[in-house]
Amino acid sequence: MTAPPAPIERDVQFVAGDGEIDLTWGHPDPAFLPADVVAEATATVLAEHGWETLSYGAPAGPWTLRNAVAEHLRRGGEGPVDPHDVLITAGASGGLDLVLSLLARPRDVVFVEQPTYFLALRILADHDLEVVALASDEHGSVPDDLDRRAAALGRSDPAPTGRRMFFYCIPTFANPTGRSLPAQRRVDLVTTARRHGVTVIEDDVYRDTAPAAPASMWSIDPRTVIRLGSFSKSLAPGMRVGFLTAERTTIERIERCGVLDSGGGASHFAAMVVARLLVSGAFTTIAAGAASRLAERRTALVGALDDAALAFPVPDGGFFVWLRVPAGVTSGQFTAAARRNGVLVADGRPFFAGTPTGEHVRASFSMLAPDQLTRGAAILNETARSFG
Amino acid sequence: MTAPPAPIERDVQFVAGDGEIDLTWGHPDPAFLPADVVAEATATVLAEHGWETLSYGAPAGPWTLRNAVAEHLRRGGEGPVDPHDVLITAGASGGLDLVLSLLARPRDVVFVEQPTYFLALRILADHDLEVVALASDEHGSVPDDLDRRAAALGRSDPAPTGRRMFFYCIPTFANPTGRSLPAQRRVDLVTTARRHGVTVIEDDVYRDTAPAAPASMWSIDPRTVIRLGSFSKSLAPGMRVGFLTAERTTIERIERCGVLDSGGGASHFAAMVVARLLVSGAFTTIAAGAASRLAERRTALVGALDDAALAFPVPDGGFFVWLRVPAGVTSGQFTAAARRNGVLVADGRPFFAGTPTGEHVRASFSMLAPDQLTRGAAILNETARSFG
Repeated sequence: MTAPPAPIERDVQFVAGDGEIDLTWGHPDPAFLPADVVAEATATVLAEHGWETLSYGAPAGPWTLRNAVAEHLRRGGEGPVDPHDVLITAGASGGLDLVLSLLARPRDVVFVEQPTYFLALRILADHDLEVVALASDEHGSVPDDLDRRAAALGRSDPAPTGRRMFFYCIPTFANPTGRSLPAQRRVDLVTTARRHGVTVIEDDVYRDTAPAAPASMWSIDPRTVIRLGSFSKSLAPGMRVGFLTAERTTIERIERCGVLDSGGGASHFAAMVVARLLVSGAFTTIAAGAASRLAERRTALVGALDDAALAFPVPDGGFFVWLRVPAGVTSGQFTAAARRNGVLVADGRPFFAGTPTGEHVRASFSMLAPDQLTRGAAILNETARSFG
Repeated sequence: MTAPPAPIERDVQFVAGDGEIDLTWGHPDPAFLPADVVAEATATVLAEHGWETLSYGAPAGPWTLRNAVAEHLRRGGEGPVDPHDVLITAGASGGLDLVLSLLARPRDVVFVEQPTYFLALRILADHDLEVVALASDEHGSVPDDLDRRAAALGRSDPAPTGRRMFFYCIPTFANPTGRSLPAQRRVDLVTTARRHGVTVIEDDVYRDTAPAAPASMWSIDPRTVIRLGSFSKSLAPGMRVGFLTAERTTIERIERCGVLDSGGGASHFAAMVVARLLVSGAFTTIAAGAASRLAERRTALVGALDDAALAFPVPDGGFFVWLRVPAGVTSGQFTAAARRNGVLVADGRPFFAGTPTGEHVRASFSMLAPDQLTRGAAILNETARSFG
């Protein structure tokens, strides 16, 4: 995972393994991607909206979809959301890239959780940003550490000429840990960020993977937080349609950029299809089905894993369990041993911004049926005990 | 056009005017956007490829589409094209943004033609690049001017620490001039660029708008030129699917970036639909229909415009005619007078990187039927003569 990926001469990223129980893929299960529902929605939207499905889309995304996202968030408990505060993106990664392109410059500083999503680290590196990992305790990143580090940077690089500061985090059902920040920790981090002029970039892509999710950091303070949402986890990653919510001036700054005005950004066609799925209610059904399937799988994996051998925080949603390998073993050694026993897990090292601890592996429960997860857990337990 | 665009509370950018003959929109005609054909292709690709249409796409785009684009270029006369040298983008603007994000840094220099596409100028500005307009003669940008300026910059900023240099150009059926660079001028510019380590970014989005287009600058020297292609002009801009061709190391550098690996970039769903349209031959039929309609419209507008009153280069393709307003009148005055007479044209000033000459307006023939274009031309002729 640390080496650059090999070029892919296929249509998709996923490739089925060779009989192993593969817990490395952080994808929705291909078996449940709703091809029929998407086909029907596409036919309907093309029949009803014709050329408006295929023309240059509005820079901030189709107004229909911005409204539908606002309504979706409202129903999810985020309070009233104004569609002007929603901008459609090419998925959360596309949104992160867009935000960094417009708001960050090389050498700007991005604080990150430790561990965090390894491909976000790659995106930050592509923008030549300086990544600073915050200290963590059992609740997540430590506000005092953000306070200290942001204050020190603010002194060495005073505004407005100094380096801008961002805090990229995944507070809800995180990748890779599966954990969510407690409500008070969210407030403390947002308050600290605001005090130092740090923009929080909240990666919120797992929100719909469970029936109930904590209130977003964006809803705590929309002036400080840009929240990145996605339809990749609960609908279909191939649509490449997501959204961000932010304060009005940020939305308008992004909306007015050249690449969106020139028609770039999300696929308008895909966005119109997603709008149809939201408006018709089909998305609600699909997402609820995905969440209930994920709950079953999460329960299967979590229930079968031996917490004494592989200590882990119990996730309430998302795709992942973050396992601590037995003392005296490296994550690399554990990953290799598990592979020999027929189970693939992701070595945790690429998820660290600084020097990795080498103490963790990530297991995904999104792709496999409960019985396979139970078998996989048993093999992981045995693998752990074999080092005992 | 110079003021920031107002937020759009609609699904699409285009809005029909109020009875004027509107020659400002550089869009394909909505009346011919192929909704039925896209609906059929989507149904087929979802039925045949199922989850592979909706999963995370390969970072460089679906291999099926990379192959189909290579074949399309080969049939267009570009010689054998290796699909490894093709990367799928979110349209040409998305490709430009991606290339600049990965290969350019603030203060790097981008040479541009004078005039050039105004939204490309906005994208360059969003990346904090220094834009330098090259001198032009009747054939286009002057190679000796590129030579002089690149040499001066190379001396003041020697490699490898110095600023990188790019040359953004639209050599084929340009926006806004409609002109194409002659073959020898292409060779001279590419040779000059290569000598100074300047990367040429060839915006090639109008290639399919005419049955025959000059060989691309990329085909002259793929080591020096990154060519941006698109399906927006001949198929449907809302798909947001385009491609770039470049040398293998550049393709692999882009393919390995975080945002593409994380599933960002083009919509995989839309790309799979476009792949189907290319493989089935439907795209060839659609593009040929569009090109023949555009030829008819181009002929109507060009034939009815009075070259004595509004001197213009006769375009061989694309969407645009670039009119010189009468001496003693500014483009702003002419645009206002034409508007009073019921015809909308685009003031040429936003198309200039430096101080605009204020001597030109752009008229698009892509959106209107021949009889409306003929009427529009008559009104423009009269407007010009009224200043005589």
